[in-house]
Amino acid sequence: MLMSLPVDLTYERFQQLQLRLDMSRGKPSPEQLDLSQALIDEAGEAGHLARDGFDCRNYGLASGLPEARELGAQLLGVPSAQVIAAGNSSLELMHDALTFALLHGVPVCEAGERVNCGAPWRAQGEIAFLCPTPGYDRHFAICEALGVRMIAVPMREDGPDMDRVEALVRDDPSIKGMWCVPLYSNPTGAIWSDEVVRRLAAMPAAPDFRLFWDDAYRFHHLTDEAFATLDVVEACAAAGHAERVLMFASLSKVTFAGGALAWLAAAPHNVTWWQKHAAVRTIGPDKLNQLRHVRLLHERATLTALMARHRALLKPKFDAVDAVFRARLAGVPGVSWNVPRGGYFISLYAPEGCARRTVELAAAAGLILTPAGAAFPYGVDPRDSHLRIAPSFPALDEVRLAAEGIALALLRAIDERRA
Amino acid sequence: MLMSLPVDLTYERFQQLQLRLDMSRGKPSPEQLDLSQALIDEAGEAGHLARDGFDCRNYGLASGLPEARELGAQLLGVPSAQVIAAGNSSLELMHDALTFALLHGVPVCEAGERVNCGAPWRAQGEIAFLCPTPGYDRHFAICEALGVRMIAVPMREDGPDMDRVEALVRDDPSIKGMWCVPLYSNPTGAIWSDEVVRRLAAMPAAPDFRLFWDDAYRFHHLTDEAFATLDVVEACAAAGHAERVLMFASLSKVTFAGGALAWLAAAPHNVTWWQKHAAVRTIGPDKLNQLRHVRLLHERATLTALMARHRALLKPKFDAVDAVFRARLAGVPGVSWNVPRGGYFISLYAPEGCARRTVELAAAAGLILTPAGAAFPYGVDPRDSHLRIAPSFPALDEVRLAAEGIALALLRAIDERRA
Repeated sequence: MLMSLPVDLTYERFQQLQLRLDMSRGKPSPEQLDLSQALIDEAGEAGHLARDGFDCRNYGLASGLPEARELGAQLLGVPSAQVIAAGNSSLELMHDALTFALLHGVPVCEAGERVNCGAPWRAQGEIAFLCPTPGYDRHFAICEALGVRMIAVPMREDGPDMDRVEALVRDDPSIKGMWCVPLYSNPTGAIWSDEVVRRLAAMPAAPDFRLFWDDAYRFHHLTDEAFATLDVVEACAAAGHAERVLMFASLSKVTFAGGALAWLAAAPHNVTWWQKHAAVRTIGPDKLNQLRHVRLLHERATLTALMARHRALLKPKFDAVDAVFRARLAGVPGVSWNVPRGGYFISLYAPEGCARRTVELAAAAGLILTPAGAAFPYGVDPRDSHLRIAPSFPALDEVRLAAEGIALALLRAIDERRA
Repeated sequence: MLMSLPVDLTYERFQQLQLRLDMSRGKPSPEQLDLSQALIDEAGEAGHLARDGFDCRNYGLASGLPEARELGAQLLGVPSAQVIAAGNSSLELMHDALTFALLHGVPVCEAGERVNCGAPWRAQGEIAFLCPTPGYDRHFAICEALGVRMIAVPMREDGPDMDRVEALVRDDPSIKGMWCVPLYSNPTGAIWSDEVVRRLAAMPAAPDFRLFWDDAYRFHHLTDEAFATLDVVEACAAAGHAERVLMFASLSKVTFAGGALAWLAAAPHNVTWWQKHAAVRTIGPDKLNQLRHVRLLHERATLTALMARHRALLKPKFDAVDAVFRARLAGVPGVSWNVPRGGYFISLYAPEGCARRTVELAAAAGLILTPAGAAFPYGVDPRDSHLRIAPSFPALDEVRLAAEGIALALLRAIDERRA
């Protein structure tokens, strides 16, 4: 069907196709979910007994099943004593870490020794987070909801503008944290350079400053090269700021979205801090689900093989978007897009003032895109230029169609503006 | 083995048995967990598709699977639109509800109409919760961690001392909430009377006052009579305070502890409030686990049958404790205990000043009890008299042995005090 779309397809004719396509969220496709079907089909074989005979059907192990912590340790490169294996999403862990910090403060250390617990962030007046932009809308929603002022810093190919970050953080102790998606950043696909990571680890900052290190796409490569960012836990320790980073990761886009498990990894004082506050909140994670995951994934090699199968399903969709954009948008002034080497998103940059209208026009043609501005603090893209495209969920043919629709909507928005 | 224990068994001879028994927490026994083994063995048959074809392996349904909300609605007697089906523990829901209230305030309504959102509790100066005591240690731990002052009120057979509650709440707008375990209260086994529930619903209180209604033992009967407390959601609505109550329940002691699901039920404005703040925190619960639970439990009758099997395992243990206490402690001045009609605990009352020492002596004989004072705010039992006994986990013979040990430790503590 798609191959027959005429080169001179117009926005009106696309609209007449009366499609219903959703490219708004980074959801895995059903075929990707099928890759982990053994988690369901073979749940009976995983049973309920942990390696040491612990009954995973009962209370206990508030920091997670030891083998689930070890799997996290292996995958994240952090000792398992420094890894918490938790519930079904890293978003929850990030939200709760910020809440705990607001209400209770975080450990303040010098040379690895805990000096004391810093004052609750909430008690320190207005506090702020640095937000590399474009960034992840759910990070920004947490800050907005919790009353944490957001300071945008520009995102580059190799990570945030570090001159800007350092200048902001140096003289402002009210800046308590920074959102970081270090590998295949949502939504620009940036891969943060070793230098960026080292500078983040070493820069002068408030003693209770924290990098919220959302390693969401650590396993999600789209090319032959499995990119990796510098070990931030080690880099912070080497810089004398071991407690600076809280690392988050999950298996939500490895096995089942919402049905997987998440990890928090950090230096020992942070882990103790987390355990203290989390113990008040929860009786612990679903250890049966952790057990099923450990049985399915075993170790790094198993996960790597699984991610290669994800890639085989995802890569053609990303390629299809790129191919359509090349055909329709190459050479259009002010238009560009990235070809990500991993992750779940493509960023499409429209000429200034055209993004919101493109989303409207797409919607009018039955094509749901992420709201324009979503990747910016408070939902406001100052240039109204950025579009986030999530090609993972629809089938390949639909992705191609949707890319056509996006291109046509963008071209129409540019035309309207010119008129 | 046990039947041969001599009537003149002494504390020293009990100690020489070198037992290792833990009666400290209300954990289900392995035999109880076996009752839900189909959740594991037949997980493959539950599959991943909801009733309407929704793929439970993917993102979505932040308020829970519709059929899991409906099951909650049926069991709790609240319309399903007013029920959230969440993750693996009601404790988390209670903690988060209190956190949301502290940070954001709660809806303030008049005659069912939302007037506005009240000021964040944290912004209103020092706030307090009423704590019927003896009560649940984890409730009190949440208040202590979040800096909410606890005001103890005496617990009676039919619920909290309502004269005291009303007098406290009437003139003090800083009292924002109250912990309630209305049926088979932890740990006294109280069944709150209709009058108590009606008075709680109707009493004058701050407009943003909330009953934290932990219906933990709603399904957990130990006698032929399935006791029930008055429908508090309805009672609050009838009294013109529809938004006063937040009801919590879970299946943690129905299927798997930590591997089940929890519900929040409340009037519509509270539900909207919860959804707004929870949406920032989470991508939603593990819907696959909810699906498994719905397939296993279907409806009220299935749950009732399952709970009868729990009772068959639990009742003999409670009876054994009572029998030993009757044999060893009947007529000892200042000593009494309750015979609960449901729930997970027995409260044993020692003469004033003897509880802590009894726990120490038990520990020295290899018998772990809940720390004395745990059932009181800040861990302080002003009379040092209350002991919480959790007979569910050990095997029946061990429970008998443990009850002997508790009785002997208590008698020794009384002797020491007399000396």
